[in-house]
Amino acid sequence: MIVESRTVTFDSIALDSGATLAPVEVAYESYGKLNPARSNAILVLHAFSGDAHAAGISPETGQPGWWDNMIGPGKAFDTNQYFVICSNVLGGCRGTTGPSSPDPATGRPYAMTFPVITISDMVRLQKMLIDHLEIPRLLAVTGGSMGGMQALEWAVAYPDRVVAAIPIATTTRHSAQQIAFNEVGRQAIMADPDWNGGDYYGKRPPARGLAVARMVGHITYMSDDSMREKFGRRLRDKETFSFGFDVDFEVESYLRYRGSQFVGRFDANSYLYITKAMDYFDLTNGHGSLAQALAATGARFLAISFTSDWLYPSYQSQEVVRALRSRNCDVAYVELESNYGHDAFLVDVTGQTDLVRGFLASTLERVG
Amino acid sequence: MIVESRTVTFDSIALDSGATLAPVEVAYESYGKLNPARSNAILVLHAFSGDAHAAGISPETGQPGWWDNMIGPGKAFDTNQYFVICSNVLGGCRGTTGPSSPDPATGRPYAMTFPVITISDMVRLQKMLIDHLEIPRLLAVTGGSMGGMQALEWAVAYPDRVVAAIPIATTTRHSAQQIAFNEVGRQAIMADPDWNGGDYYGKRPPARGLAVARMVGHITYMSDDSMREKFGRRLRDKETFSFGFDVDFEVESYLRYRGSQFVGRFDANSYLYITKAMDYFDLTNGHGSLAQALAATGARFLAISFTSDWLYPSYQSQEVVRALRSRNCDVAYVELESNYGHDAFLVDVTGQTDLVRGFLASTLERVG
Repeated sequence: MIVESRTVTFDSIALDSGATLAPVEVAYESYGKLNPARSNAILVLHAFSGDAHAAGISPETGQPGWWDNMIGPGKAFDTNQYFVICSNVLGGCRGTTGPSSPDPATGRPYAMTFPVITISDMVRLQKMLIDHLEIPRLLAVTGGSMGGMQALEWAVAYPDRVVAAIPIATTTRHSAQQIAFNEVGRQAIMADPDWNGGDYYGKRPPARGLAVARMVGHITYMSDDSMREKFGRRLRDKETFSFGFDVDFEVESYLRYRGSQFVGRFDANSYLYITKAMDYFDLTNGHGSLAQALAATGARFLAISFTSDWLYPSYQSQEVVRALRSRNCDVAYVELESNYGHDAFLVDVTGQTDLVRGFLASTLERVG
Repeated sequence: MIVESRTVTFDSIALDSGATLAPVEVAYESYGKLNPARSNAILVLHAFSGDAHAAGISPETGQPGWWDNMIGPGKAFDTNQYFVICSNVLGGCRGTTGPSSPDPATGRPYAMTFPVITISDMVRLQKMLIDHLEIPRLLAVTGGSMGGMQALEWAVAYPDRVVAAIPIATTTRHSAQQIAFNEVGRQAIMADPDWNGGDYYGKRPPARGLAVARMVGHITYMSDDSMREKFGRRLRDKETFSFGFDVDFEVESYLRYRGSQFVGRFDANSYLYITKAMDYFDLTNGHGSLAQALAATGARFLAISFTSDWLYPSYQSQEVVRALRSRNCDVAYVELESNYGHDAFLVDVTGQTDLVRGFLASTLERVG
């Protein structure tokens, strides 16, 4: 599999808030080879804490990409057939311009002077990248969770540039509960004195607040069942309760570990900006209704949700499916059985693989 | 309705951890009048952040009790018929000995030198109170959430002292997910530098950490549906997004308010100790199985759960009901329809009232 990792710098990007970012960088990876007709490109969109490293083994970190089980030769997104692209989102901290990037006006990181961004801003930057790559139409846009929001936004904002969309475990807009979980994460970060109004670069980062935010996140990514299977009430390295406040249960150890590990790879201000973008996202914004928002798109859709996903429950996928059907769009919807909760889109590969493979094959046929 | 508010001091209490607390105080309120046969007493057990003020209007705060809609003349727990008692739990911060109480050895608050306590310790102290009140048998023990755990523990630990038990929206042991949510709350508190190893009395309390912990709690107490009905995506005092990090959505405003309000009425160390007691609770501890744990009890049971309660889901109530039925115990179980999530036991009174009233009447008949 041919892997390329690049960064492109554009002069500027106009944002939904009215602000302009100049310049703006976007980091991306690609897998496989663009065909001469430039018609086999698939844009993969990452979730909240993901990055451009979607597949293969990173030569820097030795880590597989976040969707390595789905992207590669013979896999769901078969790199023998397709040219797969993944870029880090605007506002991120893994190569694309975000709050930790230097503000050219000062030479210091933007921190909280970074403008608030939206899912639509993220997609606008991706569109600039796709234009730059001279890809006239994407065969497919796809992603889970926040990646699914971007896939939907692509189909609505650039209807003639998308042949097919595969939104997975996602929503057209956050519910009060989803906003609430994000807000708790933001408050945990901003409550940490080391956050310091966002001005912590070169100093001690708000590690404790960010870890707590991530711990909350991890609970919402799993299901009650998967936590029972993985941890139950098993104690960590002990036979009986400690009668203290160190780790007693395996699940406590896991959460603490995942929390502290996250601090090393993610920027707390990016956490604030990206969760805000998710909360603002509403596919009906400026369109009146979901059906009207989807009126212009000619894309075909495959929507997937998972039975045990309580963070992005199936009813949210069903809302967009209903709206698409009301516009007589070409849409397939599958609710996959899974115990993994929201994490299913990352780990429960079997069901997804066949669905995606078949859907892409029939999409290719139609494109001809 | 006759209301009494008292504090009793006992010489000491032996704890599950092996430690002894001496002395130990317990604050309680009572509503109604004990009959001459001393046979009409009902012990009401409060949930995590509750206190002894279960009914009536507090002369100090002007606030109604936390179960005022259920306790009073003509209500579910009819104070014209029953003598209702509610005490603050061991480890609490509302009159009963807890980490904020003075350690007689030093004259300063125990803070983190307070021994780790269990649900069974809480119940042992309640038993001392009931002995002190010379009540030979409780007509009923009841409570929701952590109150339900205590009701179950009463029936198991003091089988000849309980005629009936009404555990509501509760479990015989915390799942990994329930432990995880509690652990996040504890980590949020302990991550706050103002927590200072628990030694913050007379200084600035860990207000930010405690507020974040409470925000997480509030999300788990509501349902996706009830949050949608109460907040949806409504903006707070604005027409459009602020493109900043102040409050945009109503639900953010609500969580911030409830978080900061909690700080004024609850002690952060009590948060740590009481959540730990919940996580340690396992009715099978020392008994082998649930059925064996319940083998000695002669109590009759009414178990109630709520359809939208995802924090203490119905399957957890059904587990104890199954175990009771396997011992041929007298048990009624009702899953009530409610949109309120876990909060239903506090707010969704209609269904509960009829059930409790009928169950208590038939219990009285049997006692004769």
